Amino acid sequence: MSGIKSPFGRVMGGAGMPDWLRSYNRADASADVMASVIVTIMLIPQSLAYAMLAGLPPQAGLYASILPLAAYALFGSSRVLAVGPVAVVSLMTAAAVSNVASQGTPEYWGAALVLALLSGIMLLAMGMLRLGWIANYLSHPVVSGFVTASGILIAMSQLKHLLGIEVSGHNLIELGGGILSQLSVIHLPTLLLGAAALGLLIWSRGPFKVWLSRFNLPASVSDMLVKAGPVAAVVLTTLLVSVFGLDQRGVPVVGAIPQGLPQVTLPTFDPELWQSLLPAALLISLIGFVESISVAQTLAAKRRQRIAPNRELLGLGSANMAAAFSGGFPVTGGFSRSVVSFEAGARSPLAGVITAVGIALTAALLTPLFHFLPKATLAATIIVAVLTLVDLPALKRTWDYSRTDFTAMAATVLVVLLVGVEAGVMTGVVASILLFLWKTSRPHVAVVGQVPDTEHFRNVLRHEVITHPTVLSIRVDESLYFANARFLEDLIYDKVVQQPLVEHVVLMCPAINHIDASALESLEDLMHRLSDAGVKLHLSEVKGPVMDKLKRSPLLEHLSGQVFLSQYQALQTLQPELDAEPPAPLSKAG
Amino acid sequence: MSGIKSPFGRVMGGAGMPDWLRSYNRADASADVMASVIVTIMLIPQSLAYAMLAGLPPQAGLYASILPLAAYALFGSSRVLAVGPVAVVSLMTAAAVSNVASQGTPEYWGAALVLALLSGIMLLAMGMLRLGWIANYLSHPVVSGFVTASGILIAMSQLKHLLGIEVSGHNLIELGGGILSQLSVIHLPTLLLGAAALGLLIWSRGPFKVWLSRFNLPASVSDMLVKAGPVAAVVLTTLLVSVFGLDQRGVPVVGAIPQGLPQVTLPTFDPELWQSLLPAALLISLIGFVESISVAQTLAAKRRQRIAPNRELLGLGSANMAAAFSGGFPVTGGFSRSVVSFEAGARSPLAGVITAVGIALTAALLTPLFHFLPKATLAATIIVAVLTLVDLPALKRTWDYSRTDFTAMAATVLVVLLVGVEAGVMTGVVASILLFLWKTSRPHVAVVGQVPDTEHFRNVLRHEVITHPTVLSIRVDESLYFANARFLEDLIYDKVVQQPLVEHVVLMCPAINHIDASALESLEDLMHRLSDAGVKLHLSEVKGPVMDKLKRSPLLEHLSGQVFLSQYQALQTLQPELDAEPPAPLSKAG
Repeated sequence: MSGIKSPFGRVMGGAGMPDWLRSYNRADASADVMASVIVTIMLIPQSLAYAMLAGLPPQAGLYASILPLAAYALFGSSRVLAVGPVAVVSLMTAAAVSNVASQGTPEYWGAALVLALLSGIMLLAMGMLRLGWIANYLSHPVVSGFVTASGILIAMSQLKHLLGIEVSGHNLIELGGGILSQLSVIHLPTLLLGAAALGLLIWSRGPFKVWLSRFNLPASVSDMLVKAGPVAAVVLTTLLVSVFGLDQRGVPVVGAIPQGLPQVTLPTFDPELWQSLLPAALLISLIGFVESISVAQTLAAKRRQRIAPNRELLGLGSANMAAAFSGGFPVTGGFSRSVVSFEAGARSPLAGVITAVGIALTAALLTPLFHFLPKATLAATIIVAVLTLVDLPALKRTWDYSRTDFTAMAATVLVVLLVGVEAGVMTGVVASILLFLWKTSRPHVAVVGQVPDTEHFRNVLRHEVITHPTVLSIRVDESLYFANARFLEDLIYDKVVQQPLVEHVVLMCPAINHIDASALESLEDLMHRLSDAGVKLHLSEVKGPVMDKLKRSPLLEHLSGQVFLSQYQALQTLQPELDAEPPAPLSKAG
Repeated sequence: MSGIKSPFGRVMGGAGMPDWLRSYNRADASADVMASVIVTIMLIPQSLAYAMLAGLPPQAGLYASILPLAAYALFGSSRVLAVGPVAVVSLMTAAAVSNVASQGTPEYWGAALVLALLSGIMLLAMGMLRLGWIANYLSHPVVSGFVTASGILIAMSQLKHLLGIEVSGHNLIELGGGILSQLSVIHLPTLLLGAAALGLLIWSRGPFKVWLSRFNLPASVSDMLVKAGPVAAVVLTTLLVSVFGLDQRGVPVVGAIPQGLPQVTLPTFDPELWQSLLPAALLISLIGFVESISVAQTLAAKRRQRIAPNRELLGLGSANMAAAFSGGFPVTGGFSRSVVSFEAGARSPLAGVITAVGIALTAALLTPLFHFLPKATLAATIIVAVLTLVDLPALKRTWDYSRTDFTAMAATVLVVLLVGVEAGVMTGVVASILLFLWKTSRPHVAVVGQVPDTEHFRNVLRHEVITHPTVLSIRVDESLYFANARFLEDLIYDKVVQQPLVEHVVLMCPAINHIDASALESLEDLMHRLSDAGVKLHLSEVKGPVMDKLKRSPLLEHLSGQVFLSQYQALQTLQPELDAEPPAPLSKAG
């Protein structure tokens, strides 16, 4: 044993100087600046791309990457989480906003601002009310299925930009149908440019990476070179368009982006609009929070830092509020940008602030550079980024582990693909809750016997154990509650009826964590039915908290049998001859 | 021990002669006829009253008590359940139907027929698909709260008939407000008649019963005399009205009821109407089924008969289909009528058929007798009947046993009273599911130690047990699943961090009945976090089915520690010095 424990970082308190600031030094500062420059360069095409995915003008993507970053740096708990537009949330934004406004209108952007505001308010409220646990109801298979299906949907939605056609839709059927009907009008120059960008991106992640590995470069340097792929694709295709005037030949480009810092925007207060965006805002908040917190926890674990979920809610909430008031759209902590920042060596939230300044400078001065950037390149960037989210083998792994979890996951994937993102999340949550209820409503029940020469009792079907004809020991492997009470009552009764010699039933309760009022009623009914049949009902190994509750009920007063501390004690009392002269062990016998 | 087991009645099979018919003899027949005559007399005013409660013409109540009884006798499994209009279902019918049609119109009755048809189809489908377990999701406190609140609501809704005023509403606020605003136009003769009927009913159940007990009458005879109270009230007040011509002075009476047998009615097929009645039909089916099955089981238990829930669904389904095609409205098995039939000595489903014939004869020949029956008398009958359903002390009992159950119950009561019956049931079901999830998401976790001189391990806070500084034994009293996985991960990790000497954590799993994919992920995360801190994670007393699943996951391969059959074995292995020289027992120590 090491004997030495690592000094686990304390969660930052609500007041006073954050702990990272107390020890901040020049080395930290230069690491932060270095990381920020890299992240800024990475973020610019990503921001433009996710604005396009959300159906918004490109500058919205830049604006959503300025103040929200600073706001998160002030209020969030992760030191390396990079907040901004991310793929899944941008897709959800497009799905929600296009229900209430047409893409390209001021109302569309306005609705995106309202969505960010509502999402910000909800996240802040959840943080202040300490409701971070709500996100736990998004089970792991549901989130995993949701992210995989969203990735496929996003990639499909970007195909139109690669093909130079016009298609709209929020699920595979609409998108696929649209693309098929437009195949005859594919714009070849656009397709060639897009394919080149896509090829470059895939090559830089694959063969180029392998090739680089020959030159004993430090891992961080070769990693950065690989990650520069999107920047290279942007630069090269932009040059191609501007040199050959491809935009004149119908290749869609980003076009003029207004130069300047984001203006203060006031989301409109229209009760009807707010109400219709409310469900979407809730789902975006939850999904954004789950995505962000899992990124933050993964990275924090690597540096032995801790994440405070309720602080994260405050950080993300204020980031979304900032987005709403500065012309952005819903944001959250993104995986790829956070990893880039982490691997580039960012040490403190200051890195986020410096990145924000870099993007602000870009918005103020450099937007003309992106005039000739082809939309196909942005689409290629998105496709390559989201395909890393798609984890189809996870379906197989989940199937192998649990059919129940697989069912929830498969339902989520199918509904996202065939109906849409919002319906998909809802289906996943409802399915996992219903499946959990179903599973606990049909619990495992074992008839148990004594393991020879021990005080332990095990399932007669799995172990060689000693049983006795007049005492039936039954272990229920579930809490007793309304959904299973009547089922168990009948099941136990039927087991007794099958064994006419039984005089005592001992219900072994080590796995019973609650007995609710419905189950209490069923236990009383069971006891009366057994009494009518001349059989006494005993309880053993009742947990402390359960016993406390039973003592407040009339059950124990009426109980036809006794309550034993252990099953062994129960058997010693009910069949004292057992110890004197144990019968031969019986295998697989009732 | 008696050694003799009662011959538990077998459930009737789907085909062949029902078992009661094989042994049916003359004594059974005369008992059935006797019981039927009594039940018929009881049922007539009840049927008229519940038709009034449902907002339908009086003959609908008679029709709903003819063919449905015969249909249930053919297909149901209870020998004594009496099916027909009941208070709660009539109230729910009124609430649902008045949403789509105005009382008094042919559309209103037509919608009631559709409701009966839909309810019949659902019950039959649930029976054929063996979905009787769905009703278990109506927990005991929710049903109890629902019945109590409905009883209050029904009594309130009938006050207008006692007062001779016009009031409509589906919750306490609407009804109370309506009554208060009409207080100035109370019709005195109606009130006096109603008060007389109410007084007679209360007197016959109270003082009269006590008085009767002086005359050593057989219990069954005095019971019947008491139960004749409603009949006496009907006869007396009808005579009063007809002799003094009170109907001319504004006392509302039942009026002309068409003479004749029910005609065949074909519920209209209007997809929009069907769709809007669908949710109500589902709730009525479930509530009706729960009410009916609990009555049937209570009575069956007294005679050692058994009830087959899926057969019951078929019985109730066909009863409702029969109601839909013969001018009735939704029906179910009623408590008071079943008890009367049971106590009058009915022995077979034939009693139900004979009762149906009796009511058919009444509908065909005797309806003029009810012309002068005051509505106030029917209202008094209903009020006295439903007030026996109101069980306010149940709220206190539930509060004493479990705050969670109380919360679900109180929510049901409040929403039924303040909003209405449908919203109330829905609230109850959703609240009980959410509360169950909440409870299981914050499980009880105990640090355990060895009970001296045994192989048992108990909570250190409740028992005098032996612990050891390098081994931390933690027992989680709940299955691990998505809603509690992350919470437990943090909780266990925090407990370890608090004890810097710990080298081994043994997770004692006898109460863990499932580990879902989300929890598996959290266990892996926990193991990695503990490994980083130099602590090994072990498992003990893992249940067979859980172990089977874990073997299909990668967790066991990576596991930093071992899996032990028992906690005792774990401790013997991890701190072998324990047995050699046990430290002194520590009380209330970690």
